[in-house]
Amino acid sequence: MALAETTVAAIPAMQPIGVIRTPFQRSAGTPIQSAVSRGAEGRVELFPAFAAGLKDIEGFDRVWLLYSFDRASEPRLLARPYLDRAERGIFATRSPARPNHIGMSPVRLLAVQDATLLVSDVDMLDGTPLLDIKPYVPAFDHFAVERVGWYAGLPVAGAVADGRFERP
Amino acid sequence: MALAETTVAAIPAMQPIGVIRTPFQRSAGTPIQSAVSRGAEGRVELFPAFAAGLKDIEGFDRVWLLYSFDRASEPRLLARPYLDRAERGIFATRSPARPNHIGMSPVRLLAVQDATLLVSDVDMLDGTPLLDIKPYVPAFDHFAVERVGWYAGLPVAGAVADGRFERP
Repeated sequence: MALAETTVAAIPAMQPIGVIRTPFQRSAGTPIQSAVSRGAEGRVELFPAFAAGLKDIEGFDRVWLLYSFDRASEPRLLARPYLDRAERGIFATRSPARPNHIGMSPVRLLAVQDATLLVSDVDMLDGTPLLDIKPYVPAFDHFAVERVGWYAGLPVAGAVADGRFERP
Repeated sequence: MALAETTVAAIPAMQPIGVIRTPFQRSAGTPIQSAVSRGAEGRVELFPAFAAGLKDIEGFDRVWLLYSFDRASEPRLLARPYLDRAERGIFATRSPARPNHIGMSPVRLLAVQDATLLVSDVDMLDGTPLLDIKPYVPAFDHFAVERVGWYAGLPVAGAVADGRFERP
């Protein structure tokens, strides 16, 4: 495995391409997923240098936002997620305190105004650095699955975060 | 907007957490999405330092892989995607030559062997650096959408890439 670590390409430095504005200033009380965000509205403010890349995006009902969990605590390989009392492997959860701190949320696209997207179903903190936007396409993103591990049967409606994964 | 660019947090350097092994050495002929990969099998070799984070992952039918498009060409804000003849905004496509070069694919999880995941429906190049693994949870990832922009009505079954977004 040491061989693999030395032979895989390094990750080039990433740059924010914009910032996500939301009503949520702290983790506590922030919806844990777009799906339980109950329509909370926000804005994706793309930096002008990237605005040309928004061409055609107005045709989509929903877009994936990829972003940096910039206020999450250091990665923990085992953590007790918001929805559970047991400690789970970080890769079996969507918790923010994960290696590389990348979050992804499928938000609803309400309107496009120049380099700004008006969106709803936001579940990230205000000021979150944006890494990417991808169109949500059911042909690519919908899969019928039966097994959802420890999430099975959990009530997720209305679930909100607390401060457990936020940097002090 | 210059203000926003200076006030958003910088992105900390990211590190590969493993490597993805697939049958695909070049872009040409590689499936363009997991959904059209027709079961192509691969392995996710997590570096041992992260192996503890795999606890509980065996309970999921499918996982999202986030990774770096390490052989994609420089970002193009406008590009002609594989499926279309028109030039589209990069954020309205899933093309690899995008800012920050992050890819995401919902692969099927077949088995877990120590720090290795056996997966199918792979659509990335062999040796791709892994950034993250997240469980696929329909409650979070399934949304009914009607509008899918320029993808509407396109036949995607069996679609494969060519070399247009690969570094020479």
